[in-house]
Amino acid sequence: MEEKIKQLRDILAEISDLGYTAALLGWDQQTYMPRGGAEARGNQLALLERLVHERTTSPGLGKLLEDLKPIVSGLDPDSDDARLVKVTARGYDKAVRVPTRHVVEFSQATTLGQQAWVEARSKSDFSIFRPHLEKIVALRQEYASFFPNFDHPYDALLDDFEPNMKTADVKTIFDGLRPRQVELIKAISGKPQVDDSFLRQPFDEKKQLDFGVEIISRFGFDWKRGRQDKAPHPFTTSFSINDVRITTRVAPDFLNSMLFGTMHECGHALYGMGPAPELERTGLEGGASLAVHESQSRLWENLVGRSFPFWQYFYPRLQETFPQLAGIPLEKFYKGINKVQPSLIRVEADEATYNLHIMLRLEMEIALIEGKVAARDMPDLWNARMQEYLGVTPSDDAKGVLQDMHWSGGAIGYFSTYALGNLISAQLWEKINQEIPDLVEQIRQGKFEALLGWLREKIHRHGAKFEPQELVQKVTGSKIDPAPYLGYLNKKYSEIYDL
Amino acid sequence: MEEKIKQLRDILAEISDLGYTAALLGWDQQTYMPRGGAEARGNQLALLERLVHERTTSPGLGKLLEDLKPIVSGLDPDSDDARLVKVTARGYDKAVRVPTRHVVEFSQATTLGQQAWVEARSKSDFSIFRPHLEKIVALRQEYASFFPNFDHPYDALLDDFEPNMKTADVKTIFDGLRPRQVELIKAISGKPQVDDSFLRQPFDEKKQLDFGVEIISRFGFDWKRGRQDKAPHPFTTSFSINDVRITTRVAPDFLNSMLFGTMHECGHALYGMGPAPELERTGLEGGASLAVHESQSRLWENLVGRSFPFWQYFYPRLQETFPQLAGIPLEKFYKGINKVQPSLIRVEADEATYNLHIMLRLEMEIALIEGKVAARDMPDLWNARMQEYLGVTPSDDAKGVLQDMHWSGGAIGYFSTYALGNLISAQLWEKINQEIPDLVEQIRQGKFEALLGWLREKIHRHGAKFEPQELVQKVTGSKIDPAPYLGYLNKKYSEIYDL
Repeated sequence: MEEKIKQLRDILAEISDLGYTAALLGWDQQTYMPRGGAEARGNQLALLERLVHERTTSPGLGKLLEDLKPIVSGLDPDSDDARLVKVTARGYDKAVRVPTRHVVEFSQATTLGQQAWVEARSKSDFSIFRPHLEKIVALRQEYASFFPNFDHPYDALLDDFEPNMKTADVKTIFDGLRPRQVELIKAISGKPQVDDSFLRQPFDEKKQLDFGVEIISRFGFDWKRGRQDKAPHPFTTSFSINDVRITTRVAPDFLNSMLFGTMHECGHALYGMGPAPELERTGLEGGASLAVHESQSRLWENLVGRSFPFWQYFYPRLQETFPQLAGIPLEKFYKGINKVQPSLIRVEADEATYNLHIMLRLEMEIALIEGKVAARDMPDLWNARMQEYLGVTPSDDAKGVLQDMHWSGGAIGYFSTYALGNLISAQLWEKINQEIPDLVEQIRQGKFEALLGWLREKIHRHGAKFEPQELVQKVTGSKIDPAPYLGYLNKKYSEIYDL
Repeated sequence: MEEKIKQLRDILAEISDLGYTAALLGWDQQTYMPRGGAEARGNQLALLERLVHERTTSPGLGKLLEDLKPIVSGLDPDSDDARLVKVTARGYDKAVRVPTRHVVEFSQATTLGQQAWVEARSKSDFSIFRPHLEKIVALRQEYASFFPNFDHPYDALLDDFEPNMKTADVKTIFDGLRPRQVELIKAISGKPQVDDSFLRQPFDEKKQLDFGVEIISRFGFDWKRGRQDKAPHPFTTSFSINDVRITTRVAPDFLNSMLFGTMHECGHALYGMGPAPELERTGLEGGASLAVHESQSRLWENLVGRSFPFWQYFYPRLQETFPQLAGIPLEKFYKGINKVQPSLIRVEADEATYNLHIMLRLEMEIALIEGKVAARDMPDLWNARMQEYLGVTPSDDAKGVLQDMHWSGGAIGYFSTYALGNLISAQLWEKINQEIPDLVEQIRQGKFEALLGWLREKIHRHGAKFEPQELVQKVTGSKIDPAPYLGYLNKKYSEIYDL
């Protein structure tokens, strides 16, 4: 067995090294690459993807996994080796069902799709993107057809981002969530609006960046094992547990972009830096799922970073950095950064309305994959739903159906993980506060070691060993559940809006 | 034939993409990587090297080349296809003689060697590096033994950097050069020394960098197809003809480091950006050799950047940027940047003494490979030769035998290309001035288009199609010849030192 596990680890180390190398190509593309490098970069990325695909579907790997399955069945099912075989076999079994022809076609369609989307959005002309969306949806339907054993075709897509999560489960969760979030937003809209105009004035860019660095250093971002750069669309990426990179952006006239974007990406990065060293180069050193990853970023961004105790510590420092805030009391600042206002753009949405953006996309995605709506109907459907859920209608498709790049890149099946991440973050938050009773006081003093330690111990160190529902159950005692998040939102906004 | 050439180009494109990807891993390692990433980066680079080696020695490639050789023999021998087969076959024939076991052993020895060298240099303790140098020399001797057909074992090493150049040729060239350079230095040392103290005072770092950017933008550095970053040891690297990156460093109290370092790397970069687009991803889009590459960097750094007309244009701008130079007349500045002073460190050497540093290393390398001296004798030998050639003796080994990293990385066979590059640069300069009679006047006006155009046409666009001697002959009418460089040095320093 030792010999075969070693063989497996060697194969996985090579796949991992190739994946990390591809990630560096991607990081550079979005941070420093001169635009002349784009075509060559496409070739380099395509090659790395092919090399990874060849290795993740090689018959040698399949044989090794078959040999190992009975051997590890005698082990503790939560041991690294047992999980390594289980998780690797899971990925292998899915990957080998997909013909290489499909992989190549999908890669080409999404490369073209992304180019078309950039142009379509800049011209706010959906017709430029429509044929590409049609092609991408057809390919995603074909992908689903490779997995006839799922209950619903959308399951196969969701499952790639959220292992073992079912469309029906997500629907049930969202059905419990939607009416109560809509109700909350209605209640808020009946109250006087808070003022956040002071957040929208010139703030020196260098000082903004330095302030973000101060915050995430306190959170525990390890600068020996990571760095931060600027990028148009913030993201986090890893080339090792010991080389985790975040990006941020700075709006010269609006404080929130840098502030909450930086905390958000730091949350992802702390997860990326946290897995047990033994998991490095096995494929298990990533996160459990996108939703669990998002639970970490949202926890630091919102549960911590948009909380009152957090700003009790940091607001005096912020005022020192930006004297133009001297006349704004802490209470007013706190309300300002938590202003609820139904808006068109997901990435700028507040906590109360954010999930509705996600639900809208999920419904549209399911309808597309089921074939119940066509790509050409998407703009009208989008606008109708925005009006229904949020009471706003985009003035053009750039601010509507074309706002996110996900579909152009083929990431259909991805969106619900954002909302699930919000829910998990509140479940974890309840549990953490039970187990660290003075957490609020610690945050008020700018101390985050115990919080990070808890997350490391309960979530981070396991990497991808457990499926998301399994992990949430293990840590909180229940599966993904909207109640804690709803409770959190209601309490928070009752105070802010005097509901 | 078309089909087989296409097959060859497909293989070469993949090798090229892998090579470029490895280059990005290296660039990041030296610019932005947090130190925690070092171990993982080592794994990623080793994997990429292995993938490249597998492909450059694959029997499929060998068969294809055998099939193609008779086919392309009917073509114009200077056509892209004929050269592609010739150059690729040349690399293949060398690579397949080297057992994979040797490649792995050499890679491990040089990784350890570089680590040991860093420590040895920091402690100025040669004994730390000695066993590694012994191992590396033994491996280089073994490498030479795989090529019994060369006249001299050192030929096999030199040939990797300088295709088809013979040790005997280099010796002949250097034998003609050495006495005349020594004579020149002696003559200079009998004259009053020029003053360069004004170059050694505080200069704002940002302003230094901006000034360097202004210069190389005028040279023709294409910022859409390249960028500049800071690195401890400046270098140039490429991920495509359209993504060529340079690095520079800034000394806060000495102007020369940034100034001439930036122009030097820009010279490499202009060559990297210059090959014909059809050569992209064939392996022919690199330079003809290290010496030809160095001829480009030294031409822009010295023939242009240390010339009087150049500073007639740029010195008023430099004085504007750094008002502390206001009282220094142009003539005095020009003499200062061209001060000749025998010194211990190659990378800081002036034009008159630089080549002597190279000759010293070449002689020591040849003696090592011939087995005539042992690694343990190197410090004493180094110091004796420094005294003999330059009249100076290092106070410790860090400033002596341990100053360069080349040997620790296994790059034995490399040094002479620096001096050959100087010689070629002067040969080209003679030719350019014949063909662009008003070149000096153009430089005086800060115009470099015609110069860059000439280099593009005569040198850059050919990439690696021609061997270095072949290319120099084609362009200048003679092989590598020290006379023009000696003429250039004598004329320049006769004026500066009133010889």
